[in-house]
Amino acid sequence: MSDTEAPIKGQVLTEKLYESILVALDKKPAKVAKLIEPLHPADIADLMERMQPNLRDRLASFIPHDHLGEVLSELSDGVQEHILQGMEAAEVVEAVADLETDDIADIVQHLDEGQAEETIDLLDRENQKLLKYDADTAGGLMQLELVSVRENASVSEFIEKMRAAKEDEVPHYIGTVFVVDNRQKLIGVASLSHIIKSAPHKKIKSIMRKEPVTIKPSLPQEEVATIFEKYDIHSCAVVNQQGVLLGRITIHDVLDVIIEEQDKDVMRAAGLSETDDLFSPVSQTTRRRFPWLVLNLFTAVLASMVIAMFEGDIQQLVALAVLMPIVASMGGNAGTQTLTVTVRGLATKQITMKNAFYLLRKELLVGGFNGLFLGALLAVMTVVAYGNWQLAQVILAATFINHVLAALAGHYVPIFLQKMGKDPAISSGVLVTTVTDVCGFFVFLGLASLILM
Amino acid sequence: MSDTEAPIKGQVLTEKLYESILVALDKKPAKVAKLIEPLHPADIADLMERMQPNLRDRLASFIPHDHLGEVLSELSDGVQEHILQGMEAAEVVEAVADLETDDIADIVQHLDEGQAEETIDLLDRENQKLLKYDADTAGGLMQLELVSVRENASVSEFIEKMRAAKEDEVPHYIGTVFVVDNRQKLIGVASLSHIIKSAPHKKIKSIMRKEPVTIKPSLPQEEVATIFEKYDIHSCAVVNQQGVLLGRITIHDVLDVIIEEQDKDVMRAAGLSETDDLFSPVSQTTRRRFPWLVLNLFTAVLASMVIAMFEGDIQQLVALAVLMPIVASMGGNAGTQTLTVTVRGLATKQITMKNAFYLLRKELLVGGFNGLFLGALLAVMTVVAYGNWQLAQVILAATFINHVLAALAGHYVPIFLQKMGKDPAISSGVLVTTVTDVCGFFVFLGLASLILM
Repeated sequence: MSDTEAPIKGQVLTEKLYESILVALDKKPAKVAKLIEPLHPADIADLMERMQPNLRDRLASFIPHDHLGEVLSELSDGVQEHILQGMEAAEVVEAVADLETDDIADIVQHLDEGQAEETIDLLDRENQKLLKYDADTAGGLMQLELVSVRENASVSEFIEKMRAAKEDEVPHYIGTVFVVDNRQKLIGVASLSHIIKSAPHKKIKSIMRKEPVTIKPSLPQEEVATIFEKYDIHSCAVVNQQGVLLGRITIHDVLDVIIEEQDKDVMRAAGLSETDDLFSPVSQTTRRRFPWLVLNLFTAVLASMVIAMFEGDIQQLVALAVLMPIVASMGGNAGTQTLTVTVRGLATKQITMKNAFYLLRKELLVGGFNGLFLGALLAVMTVVAYGNWQLAQVILAATFINHVLAALAGHYVPIFLQKMGKDPAISSGVLVTTVTDVCGFFVFLGLASLILM
Repeated sequence: MSDTEAPIKGQVLTEKLYESILVALDKKPAKVAKLIEPLHPADIADLMERMQPNLRDRLASFIPHDHLGEVLSELSDGVQEHILQGMEAAEVVEAVADLETDDIADIVQHLDEGQAEETIDLLDRENQKLLKYDADTAGGLMQLELVSVRENASVSEFIEKMRAAKEDEVPHYIGTVFVVDNRQKLIGVASLSHIIKSAPHKKIKSIMRKEPVTIKPSLPQEEVATIFEKYDIHSCAVVNQQGVLLGRITIHDVLDVIIEEQDKDVMRAAGLSETDDLFSPVSQTTRRRFPWLVLNLFTAVLASMVIAMFEGDIQQLVALAVLMPIVASMGGNAGTQTLTVTVRGLATKQITMKNAFYLLRKELLVGGFNGLFLGALLAVMTVVAYGNWQLAQVILAATFINHVLAALAGHYVPIFLQKMGKDPAISSGVLVTTVTDVCGFFVFLGLASLILM
């Protein structure tokens, strides 16, 4: 296999294998099990995501029993829910048995109400405990699998304890060991490599790092992600108000959160539902996209009402109708640039009360200069096309003014939305382009009406 | 401190502290060192990112010597370059001495040419080795700090070797131990927790996992990120063509890549340079934003040339000028929805040759239905506003047709760009809205000209 086809060793899902599986699903179901058997559960999940709903069900029935739980946990929410709908509570419990506690909680949260109750009854106590946390908080991300040690234990006692533990009591991946007192209060952390390096008689207490970063279970998941990113943490303890160790969050859970949040922002900014699936039925997708389009219809109608105010002027000078969309759309582009920079600055917390005004001044200058240059370009084109010097002056002035207004809107709209407790990444775009459309038409047609008529 | 102010234990950068530092920088420089002393290097970096360039320089001079390297590696590229410009080669080498090899390579890559040469000469051999890899590849991400063990070693021998190693030979964070043969070829991996759990006499060979995931140094960083995401890996070996272990990539490096790539996409989609800084000078920002605005100017002019073809019709029926921007802008919104879904599907590889046509059919249906509903709404408004039934029919038909075209463009533009080897996330937006603007005006005005005139 070439480098690009198989960047990693081991069986990977090639386009060819994907097609063979599609063919087999259709014509030789007996062959499907054999084809998917060597695949990693993540690849089986990928395969399923690429399929139409009816094929997904068919494929699900061929997934090896010991892979089903992992495949489920790798699926996107919508597809996961779809597959879960076809399963009995007992089947769900059996499938998820080997998963980590946080993955089990995630799956249970996607069950139908009736199904969920039955499933929860069948789960053991530990798993039931995690279900009380909101899925979007640190509590929802945390898992109970962790390694803790008493502060007074020695390195050799710790190693003995690890050796004596049962296979399933120790998570596969540990970087950090949590050090607790006899009331399970977290008092420090020690990296596993540090423990191994230390002399056997040393007390864990003497090699741990005190006052470690900890997280409360109610912390929203985006903030958990920020902490991991910023402080280069690999795993972090979740503790309650009294400092008692409840669980841990690993960087892998955080990676999933970051990708999920990023996805959500991109989808929502275009008025899409993040749970909508590429393959969901036409009727569902049509209905889900409609409200956002209607909202945009009303903003477009608003802009056209401004145009209607100047119908008489347009009739006198049709060039106005030709040129007006340029002024409006240029403002939209400049506004989107300011907006993007501002939304990003708010997200990284680079924009503060203290420097917001300084940044506004900069955006106004940048917008003003670019408005002037672009307006001049447009003015030249106008003279060439219409030979009308006055019209050229109007378009220059209107482009300049609309760029300054675009900078104002691009700066203030996201800051205002953030202050209102809204996510500026989502609805700023519609608002800013409404401003630049409405103002673009009004300023251009208004100036034309004053000067030319 | 309340929960929201200090989600983590330890000194964090509050708005109040930020302001005190600003004041001290201005008036009591003697106090600055004391104020920033308890801060985490990541917080000092954050502080610097929020400041105007002249204040950044001033703050840099107060950073404790043992923090400077870490602060540098936490800064964004632009700010890092700015601070590095003020440093001597010897100072740079001293500052980065305690950093991990991959972080040193990153910083050296941001030095001026002359500065870089001098600095590289002062670095030790190991660090020089990493500089030959492209920063955006697996080789650029990897670090040389790792723990490897010979296949024939026993668990107790491994632990002895770890204990005998010098402090700086063992990275702080290890989850995975790489198992090599006597020619340094990677033959397996073993999790550190698994090793500790195993009986002392056991051979590492007997507990390792064979055929681990490996990465070649030339693999682009986005693909490295995909592998980590998909297979839930915490650290991965980088090997050469012969399978010899060269270094490792940790999930933390990958987290940085994901955030960086996400940022780049958002910025580029709005025609912004990802190295442009909130606080860069007005002249620089103006120049950097201008080309993209000019590109958009030409697409807007293109659309207005379509309008100019129908000047006569508009003069006869001014309502056309009022209504035409609505048809164009509605198509733009619908096209952006299809586009967003398609770009995402391409990124997740959910869209394949096999299902692309099925998905196009779905988008055409969704676009068609929504075009029909929205067109009907607009037709009603048109009758109310103008009492013109024929005009209402024209706007209904044009809205429907433009939505279908929007679905076509939203589907094919990103697929085409991807086939051309371009990133569909970046330039698809401009192209799709150009199509919907041009077609929106043409279809609406053209139909009006045919039917009404």
